[in-house]
Amino acid sequence: MDQNTLLEGILRRQRAAVSRGISLVEREDPAAGPLLCQLRGNVGRAHRVGVTGPPGAGKSTLLGALAGSLAERGESIGVLAVDPTSPFTHGAVLGDRVRMADLDQSDRIFIRSMASRGQGGGLSPRAADAADVLDAAGYPWLFIESVGVGQVELDIRHVVDTTIVVLVPESGDQIQAIKAGLMEIADLYVVNKCDHAGADAMLAAVRSCVSLQHHPDPDWMPGIFGASATARQGIAGILAELQRHRAHLSAQGRLQQRRRAGMAARLAGIVKHHVAARLGSSVRTGQLDSAVEKALSGAESPDEIARDWLACWLARGGGGA
Amino acid sequence: MDQNTLLEGILRRQRAAVSRGISLVEREDPAAGPLLCQLRGNVGRAHRVGVTGPPGAGKSTLLGALAGSLAERGESIGVLAVDPTSPFTHGAVLGDRVRMADLDQSDRIFIRSMASRGQGGGLSPRAADAADVLDAAGYPWLFIESVGVGQVELDIRHVVDTTIVVLVPESGDQIQAIKAGLMEIADLYVVNKCDHAGADAMLAAVRSCVSLQHHPDPDWMPGIFGASATARQGIAGILAELQRHRAHLSAQGRLQQRRRAGMAARLAGIVKHHVAARLGSSVRTGQLDSAVEKALSGAESPDEIARDWLACWLARGGGGA
Repeated sequence: MDQNTLLEGILRRQRAAVSRGISLVEREDPAAGPLLCQLRGNVGRAHRVGVTGPPGAGKSTLLGALAGSLAERGESIGVLAVDPTSPFTHGAVLGDRVRMADLDQSDRIFIRSMASRGQGGGLSPRAADAADVLDAAGYPWLFIESVGVGQVELDIRHVVDTTIVVLVPESGDQIQAIKAGLMEIADLYVVNKCDHAGADAMLAAVRSCVSLQHHPDPDWMPGIFGASATARQGIAGILAELQRHRAHLSAQGRLQQRRRAGMAARLAGIVKHHVAARLGSSVRTGQLDSAVEKALSGAESPDEIARDWLACWLARGGGGA
Repeated sequence: MDQNTLLEGILRRQRAAVSRGISLVEREDPAAGPLLCQLRGNVGRAHRVGVTGPPGAGKSTLLGALAGSLAERGESIGVLAVDPTSPFTHGAVLGDRVRMADLDQSDRIFIRSMASRGQGGGLSPRAADAADVLDAAGYPWLFIESVGVGQVELDIRHVVDTTIVVLVPESGDQIQAIKAGLMEIADLYVVNKCDHAGADAMLAAVRSCVSLQHHPDPDWMPGIFGASATARQGIAGILAELQRHRAHLSAQGRLQQRRRAGMAARLAGIVKHHVAARLGSSVRTGQLDSAVEKALSGAESPDEIARDWLACWLARGGGGA
């Protein structure tokens, strides 16, 4: 497939072309950069929804239910599952009711799973590129599923317009969620498996936790919804809230403001990645050896030594000795 | 307390002086740097043991049992609990049998809890400094408890001589441990709560997992131990293995080699921390704004734009425009 056929195929939302475009960006093919530039003019129309939360919260099942309901209403949906343990990768969503193949084979839903970056479950910058391909292909709804937030290179909320955090009524889960920074980032909370014991307590706990947080958008109060994704209960309410957030962002330039902040974070993430790689290679090539000896001898503190070393390293433009 | 009295008190292992020394380094007091330099000549004699593993594995209880047994044998032990959720911080260890106060008030054990750095549970560089204070005070055994490994600024294994990973026989736990990189770093594995169902399966799973890993020290094969810390079962075997690893390191310059590698990682961690702080301030002061506009306009890819920006930033020595 030559580059023009590929480009045209993506813009016409042909599945084979979309799939091939994502493969190019995923493996960092030399053709990916030019392709993304050519697509750029068509990127930005999709509403991007991030679905995150602790492992086992039922993110994939919920995402499957949301995508299925949107498809029944005639919408088209692109899905990126950035999690190697996602059921999307292994076949079954919606419990055993609807199989991934059923969703994927419907013409309205395109599903792709991608590897996560690093042990914290961070999005690779390639996932953001893949989202751009789906966006240019004209899927009006993009869902991105990801485990990690917090100390990760690229945070899901920086590449989406609406962040859904999915929790379950299990002991200790809320504390984990708070520690992972989950309770600060969502535009919409879902307590899944709300037919389980402890659901009311969990809903109350999330409510009190959210009321203590300052959402980055002062005009938006995150909604909190109970749902049972496997039973497809509570899905309509969540979809209505998604639409409400989309409408909210479309006013007063909020969407552009949010995307600008997200892009700044995305660029900073790429820069940090390159700096860490350069630092790693400095360590491997022994440029730190004399600093290590100095630190072990105890003449100066590790802090002072590291600062001096960094100053020299920056003065050399981040390169070798 | 003037600096000389403080120094002398720490070197004589006076609890008030040790405590004050750690407070100075913890709050980054201007007096901390000079103090650490003066102590440096007395640092390096303690054997440092890191205890890590997922939340709820019983790390604190195990650590309490190990420290208690060593104290009964007449040893002195310093303990740093780098985890705000650690029971050491809240009072009870060893289930309800032995309270923190019992351990702490014995003259042989000094316990201090410290805040962790960041959401991943990383050690703050201050924890490494606090360990140096306890080391200089002449505690021959230092235990450091920490949750996080993997994507954290300072990894516990880089500041200790022996790393213990504590796991429990719970479903999914092993997969989490593997994902967190726990199965690659330990010198010694403990399956705690081994009176619970599934302990044998967990032990077998850890054995097969460890046999597939390459331990960084080719001459060391990590031992795998079952224990019940609350019942104080299996503690003697773990202590014997700790002694065996200590003896192993004392031969053929292995300890120095390990500490050199640890210090290199520690220095690289400090450097990364400063770079991230400088980058953050560049973002806050709007130095990325024009790059963001360029990326959103789509003329170049975020990757290219970030690379160009980094080159300029490094050329300016990591400073402002």
